[in-house]
Amino acid sequence: MNVSIGSKTRPYRTVSFNDRLNEVELIEQRLLPHQFKTVKTGTYRATARAITDMVVRGAGAIGATAAYGFAQGINAFRGSNLRKFEVHLEMVFQVLKNARPTAVDPLNALNQIRKQLPQGATVVAQQAKAIELAQAFAEENVRDCIGIGVVGAGLIRSGCRVLTHCNAGWLAFVDIGSVTAPIYAAHRAGTKFHVFCSETRPRSQGSTLTAWELEQEGVSHEIISDNAAGYLMQQGEVDLVIVGSDRTLGRTGEVANKIGTYTRAVLAHRHKIPFYVAIPLSTIDWDLENGAKIPIEERDENEVLGAWGVDPRGKRTFVRVGNPTSHARNPGFDVTPAELITGIITPQGIYRPKELWKHRRRLGFDDGRTSRITPNGGLNEA
Amino acid sequence: MNVSIGSKTRPYRTVSFNDRLNEVELIEQRLLPHQFKTVKTGTYRATARAITDMVVRGAGAIGATAAYGFAQGINAFRGSNLRKFEVHLEMVFQVLKNARPTAVDPLNALNQIRKQLPQGATVVAQQAKAIELAQAFAEENVRDCIGIGVVGAGLIRSGCRVLTHCNAGWLAFVDIGSVTAPIYAAHRAGTKFHVFCSETRPRSQGSTLTAWELEQEGVSHEIISDNAAGYLMQQGEVDLVIVGSDRTLGRTGEVANKIGTYTRAVLAHRHKIPFYVAIPLSTIDWDLENGAKIPIEERDENEVLGAWGVDPRGKRTFVRVGNPTSHARNPGFDVTPAELITGIITPQGIYRPKELWKHRRRLGFDDGRTSRITPNGGLNEA
Repeated sequence: MNVSIGSKTRPYRTVSFNDRLNEVELIEQRLLPHQFKTVKTGTYRATARAITDMVVRGAGAIGATAAYGFAQGINAFRGSNLRKFEVHLEMVFQVLKNARPTAVDPLNALNQIRKQLPQGATVVAQQAKAIELAQAFAEENVRDCIGIGVVGAGLIRSGCRVLTHCNAGWLAFVDIGSVTAPIYAAHRAGTKFHVFCSETRPRSQGSTLTAWELEQEGVSHEIISDNAAGYLMQQGEVDLVIVGSDRTLGRTGEVANKIGTYTRAVLAHRHKIPFYVAIPLSTIDWDLENGAKIPIEERDENEVLGAWGVDPRGKRTFVRVGNPTSHARNPGFDVTPAELITGIITPQGIYRPKELWKHRRRLGFDDGRTSRITPNGGLNEA
Repeated sequence: MNVSIGSKTRPYRTVSFNDRLNEVELIEQRLLPHQFKTVKTGTYRATARAITDMVVRGAGAIGATAAYGFAQGINAFRGSNLRKFEVHLEMVFQVLKNARPTAVDPLNALNQIRKQLPQGATVVAQQAKAIELAQAFAEENVRDCIGIGVVGAGLIRSGCRVLTHCNAGWLAFVDIGSVTAPIYAAHRAGTKFHVFCSETRPRSQGSTLTAWELEQEGVSHEIISDNAAGYLMQQGEVDLVIVGSDRTLGRTGEVANKIGTYTRAVLAHRHKIPFYVAIPLSTIDWDLENGAKIPIEERDENEVLGAWGVDPRGKRTFVRVGNPTSHARNPGFDVTPAELITGIITPQGIYRPKELWKHRRRLGFDDGRTSRITPNGGLNEA
């Protein structure tokens, strides 16, 4: 998407790869919305560290970063000894796999690439293939998001007031985003509408990343505290809710997403406001039997007890807000039952959550494949 | 309530009056929870400024502060000329009335005292009476809160997990608090239970003031983000919700309270969790026909766009969190319909919200009185 800095505007992706320089380029998301800059990592270890340190975050984005990091690591191998190459490849795989151990997407990216490498071919041939596969992985992510936009744009009518939560924008993917795909598509088609960005405490991805994205695109929007969603619905000021998902269960239609999503679904249901979830196909989990089996990550209490921002001198600072001797609970995600969800917006069309299973072949379900490898089954903070 | 600083513990009230020195003493609430100190105001103008600047906040607390400020101002008059005294008294009234123009409680306090002054009596007699009336006003507030505790403590059973929102603790009143009254009463009776304090963005009264209060009393508690309430209810971790109110409609049972209260009521209703509202009698509005007529204050957007806290060097600082070029909506209150409320805890007993009107005489409804004067009908940020 386009980013304007001063009077200059140019397109960026959240993550990209320069195979000539063997460099991964990432938007430094920890500085947004107060500063825009990109960082380049020259080694696969530096790329893994960027995932660990949350330079890049968001399910789709860290998946693509791991894919590029894998190609980068493979590409850095010097020599033609296949046994040494295999040892090196395994090391790169492990380092990237462990960058965010609870995340599913990087693991899927790494497995998908490794499975398709021409085993036994020359080092040079495998290196070229790794780069090709990583680029293809990232492009598929972009295509999925474009598809969500095509499918979902019609939901946003003229005068519509859309409520979002967290950031499932282009910064959470390679480009376009999932929730933002219909928003950007409708905006470019000339539809006039307004978006409410829920702040999304404790990490405030709504007021920082989503608001920044919408501002860059010139989409009319306002930030609200998480407490204000119910009030706006009571006042008839919300016509449509669209959220993302970290894992959508293909068998039940349940949706795991950022903490607070369930609350918005309950409120929307009471007020008979359509509640949609926008996802690329890679977000569907065809294996898990029910949402109660999704382990919910309890994160560092300091996220709840304070806030990151920019102080009056422009310095990025953490301030402690809550009582210094009190503790906090900090569940990172919640699970919304299918009955509260109007539809799931996928690149293939909009489905009722309970009908995902019926349409599983069309949605990429692979009967013959092994279950996804999820080291501890956890979700990743996005 | 008791406050411990270092190894010393002593009881404090949120606001008190020393008639010998003609000083009002207030807890400086803007520094809590990071620093505890009191400030003394020597003139009624300084007392009015303390209300304006939110040194003291909370409906009951600013009502009592206005009462004391009125007595303080009256008491400062020198001489015996009754006409000059009347002019002075009117000026004191106006200054205090305008300290927080949208607030109902200070106005009720000022009117109640003025109405009962012995008109035509000597200056000295009126001064003595003003002090007596201000003390009586504050004591009534304390008695109401004690009564709420007696009535409500039985709701908190052993092992109970209580969810609160915002601060309706002793800092919002003269002492004891409304929501905290049953909590402190049950705690002192030896009941073991746990309280979840909703952070209450944007002003974070839950994570700052309520958590600080509970910590001082040794009540087991944790802070949660406002987004986590629904998740905890889903997990069966909340047994009871108690919130305060800025205005409860005697005719309909609707409850206006801090933004986010309605959301918690909707969630509690879905999960069949009892939802109570604790109020002193002064919070009941017997006049207004319905909740839609309660004007909801839209506050400064910067509250939503940033946060106040203490930086790593211990300095109180505001940090900008949200995207710097975005704007925010900031409604301060919402209205919860009677159907979502299990009961209203008053000093006189617990009532179903729709039965307040039936029991209006017992609850202090005065047929003959004039309507409350509410300059613009607004609520005050508490």
